[in-house]
Amino acid sequence: MTANTNRQMILKAYPKGAPGPEHFEIVEEPASEPGPGEVLVRAIYLSVDPYMRGRLRPGPSYADPQKVGEVMVGEIAGEIVASNSDRFAVGDYVATHNGWQTHGVADARDIRKLDPTAAPISTSLGVLGMPGLTAYFGTLEVLTPRAGDTLVVNAASGAVGSVVGQIAKISGCHVVGIAGSEEKCDFITSELGFDVAINHRTTSDMSAALREACPRGIDCYFDNVGGPISDAAFEHMALGARVGICGQIAQYNDTEQAMGPRNLRHFLVKRATLRGLLVVDWRDRYEIGRARLTRWVQEGRIKYREDVVEGLENAPSAFAGLMEGKNFGKQLVRIGQDTSR
Amino acid sequence: MTANTNRQMILKAYPKGAPGPEHFEIVEEPASEPGPGEVLVRAIYLSVDPYMRGRLRPGPSYADPQKVGEVMVGEIAGEIVASNSDRFAVGDYVATHNGWQTHGVADARDIRKLDPTAAPISTSLGVLGMPGLTAYFGTLEVLTPRAGDTLVVNAASGAVGSVVGQIAKISGCHVVGIAGSEEKCDFITSELGFDVAINHRTTSDMSAALREACPRGIDCYFDNVGGPISDAAFEHMALGARVGICGQIAQYNDTEQAMGPRNLRHFLVKRATLRGLLVVDWRDRYEIGRARLTRWVQEGRIKYREDVVEGLENAPSAFAGLMEGKNFGKQLVRIGQDTSR
Repeated sequence: MTANTNRQMILKAYPKGAPGPEHFEIVEEPASEPGPGEVLVRAIYLSVDPYMRGRLRPGPSYADPQKVGEVMVGEIAGEIVASNSDRFAVGDYVATHNGWQTHGVADARDIRKLDPTAAPISTSLGVLGMPGLTAYFGTLEVLTPRAGDTLVVNAASGAVGSVVGQIAKISGCHVVGIAGSEEKCDFITSELGFDVAINHRTTSDMSAALREACPRGIDCYFDNVGGPISDAAFEHMALGARVGICGQIAQYNDTEQAMGPRNLRHFLVKRATLRGLLVVDWRDRYEIGRARLTRWVQEGRIKYREDVVEGLENAPSAFAGLMEGKNFGKQLVRIGQDTSR
Repeated sequence: MTANTNRQMILKAYPKGAPGPEHFEIVEEPASEPGPGEVLVRAIYLSVDPYMRGRLRPGPSYADPQKVGEVMVGEIAGEIVASNSDRFAVGDYVATHNGWQTHGVADARDIRKLDPTAAPISTSLGVLGMPGLTAYFGTLEVLTPRAGDTLVVNAASGAVGSVVGQIAKISGCHVVGIAGSEEKCDFITSELGFDVAINHRTTSDMSAALREACPRGIDCYFDNVGGPISDAAFEHMALGARVGICGQIAQYNDTEQAMGPRNLRHFLVKRATLRGLLVVDWRDRYEIGRARLTRWVQEGRIKYREDVVEGLENAPSAFAGLMEGKNFGKQLVRIGQDTSR
């Protein structure tokens, strides 16, 4: 076996407020040897996701916090370069949770094999990965859109939002996307087929914009963002509206408790339902969701866009940019040659 | 037919902030004659309920607003004194939506006959009426308590909250009630069998009090109040918690938009569900709910307490007091002799 050098991106300190390169550092060490039942994976793509911000604090959340001094957590897509498992061979493309490092060891039980002929391996981190499955189950199981419903989704050009809106279109809905630039708004209407786009950075009155875009009220609201956009959406819920809380990125960098209007009365008046959703709760049905998403992608009914940054050293700034909506599509970092294409 | 004088409590003006006697006035007129299919009802008890505050503003809600210059809306229990319907006879005890007046005409289709031998007629406005049914369906259909769950309810000695907590006890739950006086707290634990009571007027740290009272977290939260009490409750939700928004009385008298912490992230982390509930959505099943509540009341498994004020002229102050939690039990106003007892 060739001795590999493992370049790792280590968390140096928990950020207060916005994360940035200053909270990370690269260290190099010889790659570990895989033990029994383990494999060594050369990472090709790192996934950068908003949920990671929640890990960068010591307090409890739905998962253990990222530890200072350890490799930054995250899912990767890569290639097996050494295997002590009879389930995987050198050259297999896989997705696994190896974090931000070039050569990590993984237990074969925690690895998912990828088929590069079905879809590019990068999609395993986006439209066919956790974000796509979040959109799939969050939309169909939590929002339960019916043909004729009006569905609103924010962060609408992102990895989750773009799939939410397209599944809603397949479901026969009137789909309104909220995004942060004219370019993104044009993308979701022209490319993805959303009915209406609202640019939250240039719209001075979100409530009026939503009233106009949703003349029959909002039946389904998929929320990745929270904050004032949600305040406006709650004002325009239709009777029996369903709200899925997938993310609250507007608050993730907050250093103080953000305040907003006490507006739960809207839920009473409209007999609306709000539910927090986390994709792992549908773990037992991932393969069903992935099979459907794969078919829709292959049929061209679901399109996806990736924003690929080059180089491990640029992962922290890509992460910082994601928290501010600077990405355009699923944020990835390529840290090795994609030999699968 | 004897000519009856009808004393009516008229809304003079919409209150800004707290309602009070200055927003109402009494007028007298000869009682109307019932037309075909109608009856004339002598009111005995008026119901006073928090939802009425929502009617006292011109804006839209789930029901039409109360009009200025008209009789104050509300359900009453009374006795038929003239009938042009073959379904009702003079002397029948009934519940109907005649509003705050001594002698109102009602369509026989909008009347429910009461059986004074099954329970006192006043209970048709409380434990066996809209508040009891709200508690019944809100608890069992929205909160879906399972044996072993921890259920928290606020306004816990009130018409709705007291029934919520007792149904939760019947359901095998650990029940925590939040109420506004030592007397009320003593009542819900000693008389109604709640496990823990928290006095929100003397508890300086509601979050700490709930943590102590709910060591395994809150599975079910029945909210009549909103505001800071809910902020604290949301912090202590268990995984998969269910929240029913029945009322937000903390905000009903507000003249400006109240602000509070943006805390929907708790719903994401705990995959919790929040649902606004309005009893009319279970209209088709009222008789099922009422039959069960009646049996539980007759068996002594559900106890109730009524706070009866005497005289039509005191209805506005009773209403004002209700909005501040001055009542102790279901707020009623007796405006005629209860000949059913």
